Amino acid sequence: MSDLPKRVTIREEGPREGFQIEAATIPTADKVRLIEALAETGLTEVQCVSFVDPRRVPGMADADEVARLARRRPDVRYSCIWLNQRGLERAMQSSLDVLGELQCAASETFGIRNSGRDAAASLAEQRRWLETYRANGIAVESVVVMTAFGCNIEGEISPSKVVERLAPVLSLATEFDVKVPEVTLADTVGWATPRAVSRLVGAVRERWPDIPVGLHLHDTRGTGLANAFAGLQLGITAFDASCAGLGGCPFAGHKGAAGNICTEDLVFLCEEMGIETGIDLDRLIECARLAEQIVGHPLPGKVMNGGSLAGYRRAA
Amino acid sequence: MSDLPKRVTIREEGPREGFQIEAATIPTADKVRLIEALAETGLTEVQCVSFVDPRRVPGMADADEVARLARRRPDVRYSCIWLNQRGLERAMQSSLDVLGELQCAASETFGIRNSGRDAAASLAEQRRWLETYRANGIAVESVVVMTAFGCNIEGEISPSKVVERLAPVLSLATEFDVKVPEVTLADTVGWATPRAVSRLVGAVRERWPDIPVGLHLHDTRGTGLANAFAGLQLGITAFDASCAGLGGCPFAGHKGAAGNICTEDLVFLCEEMGIETGIDLDRLIECARLAEQIVGHPLPGKVMNGGSLAGYRRAA
Repeated sequence: MSDLPKRVTIREEGPREGFQIEAATIPTADKVRLIEALAETGLTEVQCVSFVDPRRVPGMADADEVARLARRRPDVRYSCIWLNQRGLERAMQSSLDVLGELQCAASETFGIRNSGRDAAASLAEQRRWLETYRANGIAVESVVVMTAFGCNIEGEISPSKVVERLAPVLSLATEFDVKVPEVTLADTVGWATPRAVSRLVGAVRERWPDIPVGLHLHDTRGTGLANAFAGLQLGITAFDASCAGLGGCPFAGHKGAAGNICTEDLVFLCEEMGIETGIDLDRLIECARLAEQIVGHPLPGKVMNGGSLAGYRRAA
Repeated sequence: MSDLPKRVTIREEGPREGFQIEAATIPTADKVRLIEALAETGLTEVQCVSFVDPRRVPGMADADEVARLARRRPDVRYSCIWLNQRGLERAMQSSLDVLGELQCAASETFGIRNSGRDAAASLAEQRRWLETYRANGIAVESVVVMTAFGCNIEGEISPSKVVERLAPVLSLATEFDVKVPEVTLADTVGWATPRAVSRLVGAVRERWPDIPVGLHLHDTRGTGLANAFAGLQLGITAFDASCAGLGGCPFAGHKGAAGNICTEDLVFLCEEMGIETGIDLDRLIECARLAEQIVGHPLPGKVMNGGSLAGYRRAA
């Protein structure tokens, strides 16, 4: 295990992942409170909202207001996502950081359900985004491949399918003279296992050896942290995660679409193995407890119940 | 990952782990029902009860009755545990399978709290058990090392401490001409990480290269399946697990008392990576749902909510 990375970067997606799926209407002030608390933990990016149709995602109806109200630290990026040009325009009008992202869905059926676009329409949309990014000086940070491991409608997704879907998006980026700094493989509905992570990351790296790979993992079937560990063993240093395990995708098509891997559990895993995250675990645990208090029901994170080991070590 | 094992053996501990911790009194008939259902999944061992002082563990007050009532399949072992000679005698008087076990605690403080015995007294007790095993033709199956990774009182446990605690127990076994077929390393309170698993298994194998190592993992801090995966990568083929993750409860009153790794999540992890378990995942998921129904609150298992992938694959 000597080839584990020395340091990883964790992107916090709890506010966005979580509040878009919660049934109850969460007060805007509570969302802002959680975002502000997360920004005090050492996290360098907090994904705050998604600019999507409030009729489809009522939990994001107050996205503009959340964006406006959150007090900012200069060393933290307050990011957001969108699924179409209209969402991107809203993001640019907001006070949030607009981090250029390109998207594709390995499962076309999922893509249609998620964004209403088939593969061809999706590519046309990415072209529009690239034009917008260029016109507004927005740097592209990653290409996200949704349902990269499997989909509840199309079933298993092969690594070659992922490569096939990625290729035209990366070509498009090249057409715009954009060097893509990361391909993020998203296990949107929890089909991944450590072996699948190893195979898919291998296939993507073989085709594009110069593009770093990041992982967006969900813990639908309990393998989330094992998959993250497999990623760490492959030298991956970029992970998305969600405080307290908040979230789940509302368009995943089936019940049980559990949230991202839990940020503080991932921080625990990394720090206990000597991998720096730059994040204060005990502060993050406080955020997880706050998240649980805000949503009003138990969330799946474990370390917030088990506790960090720091206190036990001091007492021993 | 080509060195993952072809097949693993999972010991189901849900009934014992779970019903000893649940606050509510679970009807004996329900315990029996779960044991019988688990025995229909392909599991080869179901740990049914612990024969312990009912004043300390009220949930096990009906252990003798559970043992008497459970209908038996000839191809399944219905096992039990004990912490002292009196418990062992009760086990032998029951109709359950008495599988010879030796125990030690890497953290002496934990050992004193758990069984009332310091290291010396514990060794004397193991001698009594070995005498009883010999007198009754009971084969020793394993030496279990409790708190092998860490302890909330003593803190971190070093691999050398584990080796130091194990040595006299294994010497004692040799004195009785007993060849110990497994050392089970137990992460009793959830301190392990994949790196710690790798280090400790390495240290034990270095000292006793001929004794297979098994893992008893708890998911206190979310790393349970990542630790199991690390074990699989080390070629470990014996795991304890608990249906639905019984033994832990995310709700008030049980905060942090997380159970074993969840059997069906482990089965999912293994089978999806091509490692045979001999267990029917969908039947096991039914057991997990039954367990949840019996305890009357959500249990931490994930696959029982996310579902196995078999149905999605058929539909795709």
